[in-house]
Amino acid sequence: MLKVFICGGSGYAGGELLRILSQHPEVVVAGVTSEKSAGKSVTDLFPHLHKYSYLRYEPLRREKIADRADLFFMALPHAESQEAVNFLFQKGRKVIDLSADYRLRDAGTYEKWYKVPHRFPATLKKAVYGLPEIYRNRIQRSRLIANPGCYPTGAILGLLPALREKLIDVTSIVIDSKSGTSGAGRRSEAVFSFCEVNEGFKAYAIGTHRHTPEIEQELSLLYRAGITVNFTPHLLPVDRGILTTIYAPLVKKVTTEEALKIYRDAYEKEPFVRVFEYGSYPNIKNVRGTNFCEIGLKINERTDTLIMVTAIDNLVKGASGQAIHNMNIMMGFDERTALDSLALFP
Amino acid sequence: MLKVFICGGSGYAGGELLRILSQHPEVVVAGVTSEKSAGKSVTDLFPHLHKYSYLRYEPLRREKIADRADLFFMALPHAESQEAVNFLFQKGRKVIDLSADYRLRDAGTYEKWYKVPHRFPATLKKAVYGLPEIYRNRIQRSRLIANPGCYPTGAILGLLPALREKLIDVTSIVIDSKSGTSGAGRRSEAVFSFCEVNEGFKAYAIGTHRHTPEIEQELSLLYRAGITVNFTPHLLPVDRGILTTIYAPLVKKVTTEEALKIYRDAYEKEPFVRVFEYGSYPNIKNVRGTNFCEIGLKINERTDTLIMVTAIDNLVKGASGQAIHNMNIMMGFDERTALDSLALFP
Amino acid sequence: MLKVFICGGSGYAGGELLRILSQHPEVVVAGVTSEKSAGKSVTDLFPHLHKYSYLRYEPLRREKIADRADLFFMALPHAESQEAVNFLFQKGRKVIDLSADYRLRDAGTYEKWYKVPHRFPATLKKAVYGLPEIYRNRIQRSRLIANPGCYPTGAILGLLPALREKLIDVTSIVIDSKSGTSGAGRRSEAVFSFCEVNEGFKAYAIGTHRHTPEIEQELSLLYRAGITVNFTPHLLPVDRGILTTIYAPLVKKVTTEEALKIYRDAYEKEPFVRVFEYGSYPNIKNVRGTNFCEIGLKINERTDTLIMVTAIDNLVKGASGQAIHNMNIMMGFDERTALDSLALFP
Amino acid sequence: MLKVFICGGSGYAGGELLRILSQHPEVVVAGVTSEKSAGKSVTDLFPHLHKYSYLRYEPLRREKIADRADLFFMALPHAESQEAVNFLFQKGRKVIDLSADYRLRDAGTYEKWYKVPHRFPATLKKAVYGLPEIYRNRIQRSRLIANPGCYPTGAILGLLPALREKLIDVTSIVIDSKSGTSGAGRRSEAVFSFCEVNEGFKAYAIGTHRHTPEIEQELSLLYRAGITVNFTPHLLPVDRGILTTIYAPLVKKVTTEEALKIYRDAYEKEPFVRVFEYGSYPNIKNVRGTNFCEIGLKINERTDTLIMVTAIDNLVKGASGQAIHNMNIMMGFDERTALDSLALFP
Repeated sequence: MLKVFICGGSGYAGGELLRILSQHPEVVVAGVTSEKSAGKSVTDLFPHLHKYSYLRYEPLRREKIADRADLFFMALPHAESQEAVNFLFQKGRKVIDLSADYRLRDAGTYEKWYKVPHRFPATLKKAVYGLPEIYRNRIQRSRLIANPGCYPTGAILGLLPALREKLIDVTSIVIDSKSGTSGAGRRSEAVFSFCEVNEGFKAYAIGTHRHTPEIEQELSLLYRAGITVNFTPHLLPVDRGILTTIYAPLVKKVTTEEALKIYRDAYEKEPFVRVFEYGSYPNIKNVRGTNFCEIGLKINERTDTLIMVTAIDNLVKGASGQAIHNMNIMMGFDERTALDSLALFP
Repeated sequence: MLKVFICGGSGYAGGELLRILSQHPEVVVAGVTSEKSAGKSVTDLFPHLHKYSYLRYEPLRREKIADRADLFFMALPHAESQEAVNFLFQKGRKVIDLSADYRLRDAGTYEKWYKVPHRFPATLKKAVYGLPEIYRNRIQRSRLIANPGCYPTGAILGLLPALREKLIDVTSIVIDSKSGTSGAGRRSEAVFSFCEVNEGFKAYAIGTHRHTPEIEQELSLLYRAGITVNFTPHLLPVDRGILTTIYAPLVKKVTTEEALKIYRDAYEKEPFVRVFEYGSYPNIKNVRGTNFCEIGLKINERTDTLIMVTAIDNLVKGASGQAIHNMNIMMGFDERTALDSLALFP
Repeated sequence: MLKVFICGGSGYAGGELLRILSQHPEVVVAGVTSEKSAGKSVTDLFPHLHKYSYLRYEPLRREKIADRADLFFMALPHAESQEAVNFLFQKGRKVIDLSADYRLRDAGTYEKWYKVPHRFPATLKKAVYGLPEIYRNRIQRSRLIANPGCYPTGAILGLLPALREKLIDVTSIVIDSKSGTSGAGRRSEAVFSFCEVNEGFKAYAIGTHRHTPEIEQELSLLYRAGITVNFTPHLLPVDRGILTTIYAPLVKKVTTEEALKIYRDAYEKEPFVRVFEYGSYPNIKNVRGTNFCEIGLKINERTDTLIMVTAIDNLVKGASGQAIHNMNIMMGFDERTALDSLALFP
Repeated sequence: MLKVFICGGSGYAGGELLRILSQHPEVVVAGVTSEKSAGKSVTDLFPHLHKYSYLRYEPLRREKIADRADLFFMALPHAESQEAVNFLFQKGRKVIDLSADYRLRDAGTYEKWYKVPHRFPATLKKAVYGLPEIYRNRIQRSRLIANPGCYPTGAILGLLPALREKLIDVTSIVIDSKSGTSGAGRRSEAVFSFCEVNEGFKAYAIGTHRHTPEIEQELSLLYRAGITVNFTPHLLPVDRGILTTIYAPLVKKVTTEEALKIYRDAYEKEPFVRVFEYGSYPNIKNVRGTNFCEIGLKINERTDTLIMVTAIDNLVKGASGQAIHNMNIMMGFDERTALDSLALFP
C-alpha cells in the first residue's frame, strides 16, 4: 500500500482528495495537515468524509511528517507551498503540488504575477507540469508534479489539437471561462456568501487573472512560439464545474467534421478526454464529480472562426482528480483507478 | 388613461408586462389574450399577479379587440405575430411587437433565419427598431415598434460607443452571452426542467442563434459598414439576467479610462444605461427586476483588446421593460414611469 | 417630507429599507449608520442602490443624529439596539426597532433567551409589538415599535384566527419553518458561503431558537392563556422567503371550507394578508419582494388536524416592509404606500 | 456475473440504477426498456452514462426479455408495473419493483389511494417490503421485493427505534418532509420547469400524498397497532435529497442522550444508517449521491416532544441505491458493494 500525506487538507481540494482516495485500493492516507484546524478531526470540517473519522488535522511540521509517507499531496495556498514542497522533494519524497508555485517555468514570470519571488529555482527546474495529455511520459519519471490550475486545464485541452495542427491564428485567441464557486475555495468572505452568489453572474479579474501566464506558457510550448491570450473568468452560481468557450480565427480551411476528427485523433487514447459528435456541446452537469474533460466544437463559417467548448469539474479534473491521475501514472497504477465513476446526474 | 391590450399574455414576457404596468399611473389594461389559456384568469397562470384577478384570457380575435385599446403589446411567438401586428397597425393602432417579426429590415434575412417568409413587407418598412438609446426620435413618431431581442439589447449597447468612435477592428468581434432560463420562455420541455438546468451550464446554438442577424443589422448600421459577429449564447441556472462579454481588437490606442469616458459620454443622458468606474464590472444580480443596462469595460493592454461586459434583466430591459419604455416615449410620458424601482437584492 | 434615519444600514434589512423607501413619496432618508463601513458610500456596499449614491455611512453618534430626523429605523444587532433605541425614544423621536430588543414584554424572558439583561425596562413598557394585523390601533398611537421577527410574523399570522376562534388544541402545536438564507444576514462565515448552502437543506437550533419566546408571547396573548410550541427553523437554499407549516389538533369539528372562511373573515380588511382558496397553498416565490403574507390551509380529516401554511418574504413582511408598514400607520400615510408592487416572478 | 435487466430505464431512477451498477463488479446489465425512447441509446437520454454507449432502449416485451436476465429492476410508473412484475415473478425470475404496486399489503388500500384495482393479489402476498433495516432476513429469502418509496424510507427510519421502544404517543405524529425536485421524476411539465421551481418552496398534496398509507402500514407493523399520521411533502429547489422532520409527544421520560443511545443501538449494525451526536443534525448535502440515511434528534423538554430529523438522497437510499442494496442481500453479495462511495460535497 502506498502511504500518502495531504498537506493543507481543510479546503475543498483537500476534501476532494480524501473523497476520491477513499475509493483507491492501493493507497492509505497517513496524515493530513491544517494549521487553523489542527486538533480537529476531518469529520468536524467535512461531515461527509465519515470514513476518515480516525483522522485528525495536525500542523505541518515538515521534519516530522517527511518519513510518514511516500507521496505528498500539497494543497496549500500559493506562495506558502514553495518551501514545504522543496523540503519534501529534497528529502527524496514524491510530491504533487496543487498550488501554483511550481507551474511557471520562469521564476520571473512567477514573481510578476504572484508578487513573491521564487526561492527554489533549482527545484522549480525539476518540476513537471502535470497535464497527462501532454506530459505523461515525463510525469512517469518525475518526483515533483506541478498540478495544473483549474482554468488552464480546460483552456489548454480545448486548444491543444488546434495548436498542434496549426489550425488557428494565435494572435487573438479569446478564452471565456465560467467557473463554479468552489473554485474560490472554502471561504469566509461575504462576497462568496450564498445570497451574493446565488442568482448572480459576473466577470472578474478581466485580463489580470493569475492563471493567464500558466495558460500562455503551455499554449506557447505547444505552438513553439509565444502566445498571448484574452482570458476572462466568470463566477457561476453552481458548486462545481468550469465551462470554457474559446474563439480563434482559422488559418486553414477545415470543416467542423474535419476539426472534430483532428480532436478525436488527438485524444483517442486519453482515458479522460471525450470529444463530442457534431452539434453536441458539453454541459458541466455531465462531468460533475468526474475526472473527464468533455469537448465540443463548431466552425462558424460566416466568420471563419473555430469555437471550442470544454467542460470539466474544477475540483476533479481541475484539481484533485488530476492530482490522483498523476499519482497513478507516477506509481504505475492503472490510470483510471479511483477515477472511474460516472457523473452524479441530476 | 391609456388603454392597452396584451396579445399573448400567458408567457413570462406577458406576465412581466402586467407586473410592470401595475405600477403605471397612466395605463389601464383592457384585455389579454391566450389561445391555450382562454377562459382562465390571469391569476390561474400567475398567482403573483393578484391585482389582475378581474382579468381573464381571451382568444385573439383581431376584429373584436381592435377597438378596445389604443396600444397593443404583442408577445406572440415568432411568425405568429406577423399577421396580427399588420392588422392592428393597418387599423391605426399603436403596436409594440415583442416578437422578432418586424426587427429585421430585410425580409430575405428574416426568411433565411426564421424559415418563414415575411408576408407584410410594406408594414415591415414602417417598423422602428425599439432601442431608445439609438432610435428615440423615431420611436417618438412611430406607431409600430419592433421591440429588440434580449441578447441583441445587451450586445448592441455594449458595442455602440466603440463602433461610433471607430475604436475597434470589426472583423473578429466575439460576443459571448450567458442568459438566465426565463429567456427560453415558459416551457413544458424536459430540457428546461429544474433538474436538467440546475447546477448545469452549457453553450447552445453556436453560430446559429436567430438573434445573430439582428445584432449584425444594428451593429452594421451603427458602423455604416457590414459587420459579422461570433455570437454564442449560454444557459445560466438563474431565473433572470443576461451577462454579455464582448471582445474586439483595438484599432486606436486608448486607455481603459479613456474608453470609459467615451462610454460615459455616449450614455450620459440615458436614463437606463449605467457605465461603471474603472475596475468595476456588472453582475446580473444587481439589475434583477430593473430596466437598467449596466456596463463595465477593460482594455487588455497585453493583447490590445477592448473587453466590454454588459448586464441586463432579460425580461425587463431585454423585453417587457423596454417595451414599456418605448410606450412611454411614444405617448410622451416621463420615460422612467413604472420603470424606476431598484433591483431586488439579494 | 418625513425625515427618516437608518441606524445599522449595512445589512440586508438596512439595504431593503433603502430599496423600499426609494419608492416612498413622503419620505427622505437623512442618514444611515454603520460602524464597520463608516465613510463608505451606500453603493460601495449595495451597488443596486444607485439612487443613494449621495449617501455615506457614518458612525452612530446618538447625540449628533437625534435632531436630524423625525423617525429612526433601528437595524442593529440584538442587544446593541437597547441603548440607542432608549436614547432616541427619550429624546422624543419616533423609533421602529427591527432588532429583538423591545419585542419581549418580560425582561426576564428576554435575558433568559438573549443572555443579556434588559437595561431599560421603563422604555420596554412603552414598546408596541409591530404586527399591524393585531396591534394597528396601538401602533397608530405609539412612538416606539418593536418590529416583529421574521419567523414570528409567519407563525403568528398562520395561527391568529384559529386561536381567536379556539379551533385548536394548543398543547402540541408544531411550527415547522423554512427560511431563505438572507434571514441569516450579510455574513462572512464559511457556513453561509455559497457552496455550503447551495443544494443543501437542514434544520438548526431545534427547540432553542430565540424567536420561540416571541412566538409564544403573542400566541398566548391571542389565546389568553399560556402556550408553548415546538418551533423548528430550517435553512433553504434560496435568497428570500419563509414558508411555515403549522400543525395543531382540532378541538372543534370544522371543515376545510369553514376554516378558510374563518381565516378570510379575520383578514378581510388586511391589505397584506391573502387567504387562498380550497386546495391552494402558498409558494415563497409568489411573495418575493412583497409585503404580503399568503395563507393556505387544510384540515386532515383522517387525523383531525388543522394544517396551516404561510409564506412571506423574510426581508419585507418579515423585516423592512413591515417596518415601513408600521411607519405608514404611525404617520397616517396610506398603509400601502411604497409597499404596493407585485412579486418579481420568476 | 449476475445478469440484470431494467424495465423503465428512461427516468431518473433508471439512470441512477445504471450509474450505481457501473461500479458493481458482480453485475452486467443485459438490457433496458423504454416505450417512448425505444431505439435510442442510453447516452441519448443520459450523456453522463457514457459507459453504456453500447446499450439501446427497447420496448418491454415481457416474453422476449424474461430469459435474458436473472434479476429485473422494475422502474415503471405506478399501476403500469403490476402486470410485468407478476409475469416475471411467475416465470421464476427475481424482481425488485421500484414502483408502489407491491408495497401495500392490503389490495383495498392500494385501490383507494392509487385509484386502480390490484389484479394480482396472490403475487402481492409474496412481496417483501424492501427496507433492509426491518426486513433483511425476509429479503434474503424472497424473489419479489417491493422497494420502498422515497418519503417512507426517511420517515420510517426516523421513527423505527422510537416506536419499537414505545417512547412516543402515536396519535399525533407529524411528518414534515422536504424533497428535492428529482423526486418528481424526469418531467416535461411547466410546473417543474427551472423558473417555476428555482427560488421557490411550497407544500403540496397536504394530507393526500400516496406515500401516506405506505408510511402508516409500516409504522403500524412496527408498533403492532394502527397508526395514522400527518404527512406533508414540500418541494425543495435542489436536485436531490429528502429531509424529514418528525414530531411526536413523548410518553416516557428520556433525555436526548438516552434517546440517541436507543437510536444508536437500534442501528448499530446497519451499514447505511448513521445516528449523529448530541446537537448535530443532518443536511441533505452530506448524503448526496450516497445510500446513507443520517439521523439527528432532540428532545424539546419545554414541550416533552421528540423531534427527529432524517436525511437521505431520494434517488439512492430513496430508490435505486436501496434497490441495489436489496439485490446485494438477495444475492449474498457484500451489502456495501457499489454503494460504498462518499457524498459529493460540495
